[in-house]
Amino acid sequence: MAEPTEPGSGIGRLYRQLRRLLIGPPLRTAQEAHERLTKTKALAILSSDAISSTAYATEEILLILVLAGAAAYGYVIPIGLAIAALLVIVGFSYRQTIFAYPQGGGSYIVTKDNLGTGPALVAGTSLLIDYTLTVAVSISSGVAAITSAAPGLKPYRVEIAVLAILALVIGNLRGIRESGSLFAVPTYLFIAGMAILIPLGIGAAWFGLFEPHPASHPVPPAQQGITLFLILRAFSSGCTALTGVEAISDGVPAFQPPEAKNAARTLGWMVAILGSLFLGITVLSYHFHLTPSEDQTILSQLARTVVDDSPFYLYIQATTAGILFLAANTSFADFPRLASFMARDRYLPTQFRYRGDRLAFSNGIIALGLAAAVLVVVFHANVNALIPLYAVGVFTAFTLSQASMTYRWWRREPPGRHRTIGMLINGTGAAVTGIVTLIIIATKFLSGAWIVICIQPLLIWLLTRIHRHYERVAAQLAVPAEPAASERPSWPGPLAAVVPIAGYNRATIRALDFAREITGDVTAVHVTSDPAEAEQLRQQWRDAKLDLPLVIIESPYRELVGPLLAYIEQLHAEKGDTLMVVVPEFVPAHLYELPLHNQTAWRLRTALWTHPGIIVTTVPYHVSS
Amino acid sequence: MAEPTEPGSGIGRLYRQLRRLLIGPPLRTAQEAHERLTKTKALAILSSDAISSTAYATEEILLILVLAGAAAYGYVIPIGLAIAALLVIVGFSYRQTIFAYPQGGGSYIVTKDNLGTGPALVAGTSLLIDYTLTVAVSISSGVAAITSAAPGLKPYRVEIAVLAILALVIGNLRGIRESGSLFAVPTYLFIAGMAILIPLGIGAAWFGLFEPHPASHPVPPAQQGITLFLILRAFSSGCTALTGVEAISDGVPAFQPPEAKNAARTLGWMVAILGSLFLGITVLSYHFHLTPSEDQTILSQLARTVVDDSPFYLYIQATTAGILFLAANTSFADFPRLASFMARDRYLPTQFRYRGDRLAFSNGIIALGLAAAVLVVVFHANVNALIPLYAVGVFTAFTLSQASMTYRWWRREPPGRHRTIGMLINGTGAAVTGIVTLIIIATKFLSGAWIVICIQPLLIWLLTRIHRHYERVAAQLAVPAEPAASERPSWPGPLAAVVPIAGYNRATIRALDFAREITGDVTAVHVTSDPAEAEQLRQQWRDAKLDLPLVIIESPYRELVGPLLAYIEQLHAEKGDTLMVVVPEFVPAHLYELPLHNQTAWRLRTALWTHPGIIVTTVPYHVSS
Repeated sequence: MAEPTEPGSGIGRLYRQLRRLLIGPPLRTAQEAHERLTKTKALAILSSDAISSTAYATEEILLILVLAGAAAYGYVIPIGLAIAALLVIVGFSYRQTIFAYPQGGGSYIVTKDNLGTGPALVAGTSLLIDYTLTVAVSISSGVAAITSAAPGLKPYRVEIAVLAILALVIGNLRGIRESGSLFAVPTYLFIAGMAILIPLGIGAAWFGLFEPHPASHPVPPAQQGITLFLILRAFSSGCTALTGVEAISDGVPAFQPPEAKNAARTLGWMVAILGSLFLGITVLSYHFHLTPSEDQTILSQLARTVVDDSPFYLYIQATTAGILFLAANTSFADFPRLASFMARDRYLPTQFRYRGDRLAFSNGIIALGLAAAVLVVVFHANVNALIPLYAVGVFTAFTLSQASMTYRWWRREPPGRHRTIGMLINGTGAAVTGIVTLIIIATKFLSGAWIVICIQPLLIWLLTRIHRHYERVAAQLAVPAEPAASERPSWPGPLAAVVPIAGYNRATIRALDFAREITGDVTAVHVTSDPAEAEQLRQQWRDAKLDLPLVIIESPYRELVGPLLAYIEQLHAEKGDTLMVVVPEFVPAHLYELPLHNQTAWRLRTALWTHPGIIVTTVPYHVSS
Repeated sequence: MAEPTEPGSGIGRLYRQLRRLLIGPPLRTAQEAHERLTKTKALAILSSDAISSTAYATEEILLILVLAGAAAYGYVIPIGLAIAALLVIVGFSYRQTIFAYPQGGGSYIVTKDNLGTGPALVAGTSLLIDYTLTVAVSISSGVAAITSAAPGLKPYRVEIAVLAILALVIGNLRGIRESGSLFAVPTYLFIAGMAILIPLGIGAAWFGLFEPHPASHPVPPAQQGITLFLILRAFSSGCTALTGVEAISDGVPAFQPPEAKNAARTLGWMVAILGSLFLGITVLSYHFHLTPSEDQTILSQLARTVVDDSPFYLYIQATTAGILFLAANTSFADFPRLASFMARDRYLPTQFRYRGDRLAFSNGIIALGLAAAVLVVVFHANVNALIPLYAVGVFTAFTLSQASMTYRWWRREPPGRHRTIGMLINGTGAAVTGIVTLIIIATKFLSGAWIVICIQPLLIWLLTRIHRHYERVAAQLAVPAEPAASERPSWPGPLAAVVPIAGYNRATIRALDFAREITGDVTAVHVTSDPAEAEQLRQQWRDAKLDLPLVIIESPYRELVGPLLAYIEQLHAEKGDTLMVVVPEFVPAHLYELPLHNQTAWRLRTALWTHPGIIVTTVPYHVSS
């Protein structure tokens, strides 16, 4: 089948051509891919977000600890272990979600299913914010990996980040196949690099295999004492390591059968890899006494310490940037899909609901790209500034999702050992993540979490307003089941028509003829500010023997639309329920000729749009060139 | 009578309120003033443009002469005398125009009347350019008068000039009464100041009445030799003294009766005053060896030389700025009036033709303000840079106007002494100004006149294109004198209607009912990308027993408007001449709810606008809040 027709004017066509060049030709609904993922591919694609968190999680812990100087530095090990334990708890908890929701169990759906609309909106908005921040943080962190290796690019980091977002938007509008094998590559390249770097580091640190090249940054002097608050703040920062672990449970239906079992196994692998990389990086950073710097990421410092400025160092930086950009890319699949679910439930504008002509949820992709670009610009692509905003949403969604699961066990499963263990696992998950959420809010409030905490209620309020609007509209549009068409009241009253005319010419005659064809009750109306011209029209009218009333309105202020509107409203009141306004509209042969004419028809139509009971018909008169 | 109704939405109302605050309430057509001018007032108001030229004409001559050093300086006297002689010739020539065109003889009208459309367009565009440059030059020169006295303001001269133009635009949109006595004041204050300054200067220079304070600028060393070209260039520059002398002959009808006689006398006075001031300033500048400077105008230097930094010096500067701003203001009356004449003749867009609600030709005023502001910004409010563009248009208009008068004598008057003298005077005027035009083009081409010489043909081409468009439209709209209405063919063929529907709801039903009220031939059409949803609609349709055909179109690319358009075009071809498209349009209660809905009705209407034979009716369905 040929491409769809391309109607419209020259400018419209130009836009379409440009768009086709950038985005590609439209795809048919039938072309939608339903490829299933092998475990190997699924691990790479669904874990990129989680595993890429290792690129910044350790650094975020250290950034807080060094505020209390060298003495606090050692706390990085227990904090790292606590986060690894948290990861295992969350992993087990999500394992149960996988088996309970083999059709895909995102927080919004699971919460709506179990706890109802209110909590679901909290989960949904948390996730929308979370996906936006995933893009902003991952892109900024990826750019930091690049500028660590190439410091000359640092002044352009915001520009590079925005360009990267733009590239992701265009790529996703084209309809990138998330399941393509190409997307598995960056994850494995990163894992492979780390799997070499960490053992090499351990060998150099404890077994004297070779001489490391420790960085020269000393731990800066303490600015504050070691307090519980500081430790908890550092822990909160490190919790960003867990962002993205929910991805596998969201994507169960994409696995090859048996879907749930394969997904659960993949989740296990992901937790193991993420945990080992995070702990490995944390322990080595501690051993080499790496301290956060403006110019270089901790991971870059670690790589340089172990392998110096070798090609392998560049490989580490390149694959770090690669997995981070891939992580950002997964949000471009998740955000629009969630927005589409929420639009289907009438909580977001209907424009988010449907796939565009490339099968992508275009409006969701554009909205996410815009929001992430704004964040990157406002926060100067600074990961450390963005992190305090990040974890709140993630852990709120975790908590709600797992609380939902706990409730689900209690309500849906028969009592017994199976139910008890299930409730215990998800209950522990919910309790732990709930506490962590509170810790994050308490410790990160002032450094940025307040932004999210203020925006989220506003967002929820907005969504409920949107929902209420759609509900109201649906109720008013709904057709009562009975009575059938024949019993419905017919069109209310007779139809009167008024034809505003600018003079007596062919365009006018055409509109008058049309009005007369439709109804016997036609009035012509003319607004004038020149009595002589009005007299001339009256004479033409008489000569034409039209046998229709012509009303001439004098406009003392030479205004056209105002007096016309006033007359139409008055006539409408006289004639009763429905008045047709038949407007002769003059259509020039070329668009550029448009400014040579007054757009009276357009102005009238716009003004009458809000008048119930007035139906506007424009009778075009086309002038050939 | 109350103010006209204020229809439209909240934003429209806000705009109107702001506008009313700035521009004032509308004025009735009957409020147009028809006050006649006494000679004293007329001299002040109609001569401000001409007399204000003395503020820069001498300086422009000197600016060229000093290029050849002190030796060339003396040529300022013969050049000044030549320009004064030219002024007398042009004055006599226009005197005849006054008697020939007591109804007002602007170049455009006189040329159109005698030489036809082509030359009239040259004259018209010359004048439009001339008026624009009058604003730019006068405002820039007025600002130079201010910064000569207050050098601290010099860095802000462009800003001051643009603000002054903005003030003139707003003032004229409010409908300044050009005939108000207030406007006579600046001219007489300037003339009075000069009538004191020049005799004082002569007294100091030749009669030793008191010691002058000569400026310290020496004539700079010669950069080139004294050539005929240089002398002619200096003369061309000085010809700007004549700009504005045509104003009285344009405004004859504003005089008290006997109009022509009073206007002729006023013209005589103006020539005398302009000539004396110009010669006085020129002779004194020569005597005191004043040389052009970046920081001070020649007139400012002259005033300082004679009266030092006294209050009288400040008076001279203030009244110079005053008469220059008044001169700019006269263009805001002349340009829109000429644009209105030309729009009436269909050479300019119809929007220039009519008076706005304050009785001012609003669009002409805004267009002039914009054009002048662009010139001021591009040329940095620099008079010397603007002058080369200025004189070409003025002298082209002079030449055409006087050539027209010569032709008029020859064609319209009976042979005899009266005709011979008339032809001789206007012929001399035409010949002399024609030669001066050529001199100006030749000597000023490279320094800026080329801009005008390139733009003017483009402008004329554009105007003829506009004219051709309007003529074509008028021809196609014209109603043949015969036959009368009863004999005209009735509406061509039966009327079919198609109703695009998004689903089965009350808005749809309303549109379908409306279509059925009008014609028996109604088709409903629905575009779907989801077979299940289509099947549901088909079921509802059967249940509703509407007895109307429902066409369901599958859209493989999920596009809505494209397939709909294709179907409508196909149906239109089948049904014959006229197809009504009845679009159910959903109107939310609040404007801010609009983004929550797809604007399909709007997109469809826009796309169908260019299809002859398709009439679009939108049936609004209003949802209450």
